[in-house]
Amino acid sequence: MLLNQNRLLREMDHCGFDAIIGTAAENVTYLSGFWALPQWIRPGPQAYALQSRKGDAVDMSSIITSSGTLDLVADQDVTVERVRRYGEFSFQAGSNDKLDRASRKLMAMQAGTCFAHPIEALAAEIKELSLERSRIGIDIDGLQPGYLEKLKASVPDAHFVDATSTLRKVRTVKTSEEIARLRRVGQIAEQAVDAALGAAHAGMTEVEMARVFHTTTVQADAVPVLGCIGFGERSALMNVQPSDRELRQGDVIRFDVGGRYKHYRADIARIAMFGQNSEAVNQLYAALRSGVELGARLARPGAKASEVFLSVCEEVRRCGIANYQRNHVGHGIGLDGYDAPLLSASSKDVLEEGMVICIETPYYQIGAYGLQVEDMFVITAEGAERLTDAGPLKVIAP
Amino acid sequence: MLLNQNRLLREMDHCGFDAIIGTAAENVTYLSGFWALPQWIRPGPQAYALQSRKGDAVDMSSIITSSGTLDLVADQDVTVERVRRYGEFSFQAGSNDKLDRASRKLMAMQAGTCFAHPIEALAAEIKELSLERSRIGIDIDGLQPGYLEKLKASVPDAHFVDATSTLRKVRTVKTSEEIARLRRVGQIAEQAVDAALGAAHAGMTEVEMARVFHTTTVQADAVPVLGCIGFGERSALMNVQPSDRELRQGDVIRFDVGGRYKHYRADIARIAMFGQNSEAVNQLYAALRSGVELGARLARPGAKASEVFLSVCEEVRRCGIANYQRNHVGHGIGLDGYDAPLLSASSKDVLEEGMVICIETPYYQIGAYGLQVEDMFVITAEGAERLTDAGPLKVIAP
Repeated sequence: MLLNQNRLLREMDHCGFDAIIGTAAENVTYLSGFWALPQWIRPGPQAYALQSRKGDAVDMSSIITSSGTLDLVADQDVTVERVRRYGEFSFQAGSNDKLDRASRKLMAMQAGTCFAHPIEALAAEIKELSLERSRIGIDIDGLQPGYLEKLKASVPDAHFVDATSTLRKVRTVKTSEEIARLRRVGQIAEQAVDAALGAAHAGMTEVEMARVFHTTTVQADAVPVLGCIGFGERSALMNVQPSDRELRQGDVIRFDVGGRYKHYRADIARIAMFGQNSEAVNQLYAALRSGVELGARLARPGAKASEVFLSVCEEVRRCGIANYQRNHVGHGIGLDGYDAPLLSASSKDVLEEGMVICIETPYYQIGAYGLQVEDMFVITAEGAERLTDAGPLKVIAP
Repeated sequence: MLLNQNRLLREMDHCGFDAIIGTAAENVTYLSGFWALPQWIRPGPQAYALQSRKGDAVDMSSIITSSGTLDLVADQDVTVERVRRYGEFSFQAGSNDKLDRASRKLMAMQAGTCFAHPIEALAAEIKELSLERSRIGIDIDGLQPGYLEKLKASVPDAHFVDATSTLRKVRTVKTSEEIARLRRVGQIAEQAVDAALGAAHAGMTEVEMARVFHTTTVQADAVPVLGCIGFGERSALMNVQPSDRELRQGDVIRFDVGGRYKHYRADIARIAMFGQNSEAVNQLYAALRSGVELGARLARPGAKASEVFLSVCEEVRRCGIANYQRNHVGHGIGLDGYDAPLLSASSKDVLEEGMVICIETPYYQIGAYGLQVEDMFVITAEGAERLTDAGPLKVIAP
C-alpha cells in the first residue's frame, strides 16, 4: 500500500489527532489508494479520505467522493472500508447477478445514501464514526473556499487542525510499493532521455526531440509532466520549454524531465554535447557531478538536510565552480514532484531510511548553456541507493 | 491573445472593479498569456496576473512570479508590461551583449527588485499602480491558505472581492486565438481515436489501445489529460481507466478522451463496436446522437442553457431511450476542461457567440456497455459550428 501506517500513527499521536482527513489530490490517493480523476486533472472537484485510529492501530478508513466517480473506487485497489457519496449521477443498473467485480462494487456503493454536498457527506461520516467531539487533522488546501467553515458549522464540537504539514511529513518515508513505483518512473525517464538522444541529428528542433521523449514516456504507460528540453543558449533557461530552435554542432542539450507512473513522479536531469566535446563544459559537468556524488554519500539516515546542502555546494566550488550558488540541491519526490525533505540551508529536515530524494546541482550560464546533474535516490540503512544514474557527460555523434 | 479584453472590461464595469487579479493557473495564463510551469504541474507555487483599467480601456498589466520562472516570462508570448519577482534564484549573467532575445529579457527582469514573498510583490505592485484604495477583484482559489489575509493586511485600504465567478464568466466567450487552439486540440483528439481504433485487434488490451491513443496525442505536440478507454462491460464505467482487459468480438469500445494543446483542452467521446454490429447498440447510439444533433441546432446566441438541456434529454427519450436521465448534457471548454456554461436543468447560463461548448449524451448500462456521443462546438452568429464530429457508430473489422 501507499500509506505508511506506522508513520501516520506516530504523527497522529504526536499531534493528538483521533482522525485525519486528506482533501488535496495527493493526500486522498496517499491515504486511501483512491485516484479521483476529476481532482487530479482540474481544480475544484472534491474527494476526501478519512483515517481514524483506535489505540495503536489505524481503525476505520473512509472515502467521500462524488457519485460520478464511484466507478473509480470500484475499479481501483483501494484500502478502504467505507464509501460515502454526494451528488446524483444517473446510470442504468446491471440487469443480472453475473456482473463483473467492478460493476458489482459500483452497484453496491450506489445503493448507499446520496448526500447533496461533499461537506454534508464528510460530516455524516465523522458523526457515524463517533468522531464529532474529536481532534481531527485536515489538510485544508484541497477544500474549496468556505468549505472548512461549513465543516466546522456542521460538526461544531470537533476540533479541526490544519494537517497539511503532518501529511507531508508522513509522506516523506516511502513504503515498498511507493519505492517500486518511483524506481520504475525513474527508469522510464532515463529510457526516454536515451531515446531522445538516440534520435538527435543536426537540424532537429527541441519540439521534435520532445516528441521522441514523450512518446517513449507514454509507450511505458507513464504520463508526461515535466519536459524541459533545451539546446545551446536555450539550455540555460531554467524551465526551458521546447521551441523550433534547431540542434547545431557544439550545442549543449539539457533535459530536466520526468513523467508520472501510477501517480508517482520522476525528476532527473541529463546533459549531452552534440557533435563535439568541450573541455570547459566537461570540467563544469564533472564539478556538478562531484557535488551530487558527495550528496549521495552523505545522504544517510540521521544526516541533516542543511548539512548535506552546505557540503554539496562546497564540493562543487572546490571542484572548480568557485561562484556556485543554489537555494537547494535537492528535494523529496513521490506523489508530488516536490515532496519533503528539502536540501537547503534553512531546512530543518533530517534524512530517514525510506525517503526518496532527488539530489541536483544545476548551473545556468545565461546565453551560453545550462548544465545540471540530477538523480533520484532511496535512502536505505546503508546509505543512498541510486534509482537513476546520470553518469559522465554524454557526447552525441553529429 | 487569449484574453477577451472587451468582455473583461464589461464585467469589471459591472462589478465596479478598478483592477482584477488572477491567481489560479488558468486565470494567470488567461489574463497574461503566461504559463507558469510550477503552478500548472503541482499545487502551491504562486504566480499572479494583474489587469488594471483606465476609463474604457485596459490600462496596465503585470505579472508577479518567482525569480526561478522569469525565463518562462522571457520566452513566452506574454501580453504584459510589468513583471515583479519574488524569491532569490541563482544563475550566471550572460557575459556579452550578443544575448538572444529570451536571455536578454531574462537579464532585464532579473535586474528588478526581488521581494521575499509573493504577497509582498503583489502588494508593492498594487501600490505602484496607485490602486491601494481601489476595489479589486481576485480569484481566491489560487492563493495559499492565509495569503488573502496577508494581502488585506498589506493593502488595508483596498477592497478585495472574490472574482472567481467573474473570471469564469469572462473566459466563456473565446477569442479567435482560443478558438483556433480548441479547434486544433479537438482535431488531435479525433486523430488519436482514429489511430487507436486503427490498431484494434482481438486480444489487444485497453492499456495497449491507450498507448496508441496517447502516442498520437504527443506526436501532435499535445499533452495527454483525459484517457477513459474501456472495452465491453468496462465501457460502462463512467471514468474507466485502461486495464489489461482484452478486446473481444462484440465488445463496445468507449472513448471519453482529450488532451491539452497550447494549454487548451479537448473533450470528446467516440463509440465503436468491435467485430460485429448490434442492432440494440445501434438504436441506442442513434438516439444519443439525435440528442447531440438537436443540441447543436438549438445552441445559438440567446438560447437558454437550461432549455437546451431539457430539449436534448427529451429528444433522446423520444428517439427510444425512454428512461434517459442526466445532470447535464454539456459544458464549456477552454483552459479548463469544465468551463462555463453548463447545460443543465438549473443552469442560469445563456449561450453567446464565441462560446465553445461540448454537447454530450452519455448512457451507461452497468455490466453491459457505456455509450456516449460528445462533440465540441463553437457558437457563431449563425449557430453552432462543429469543431469535431462523432458521426455514426463505428464498426471495426475484427
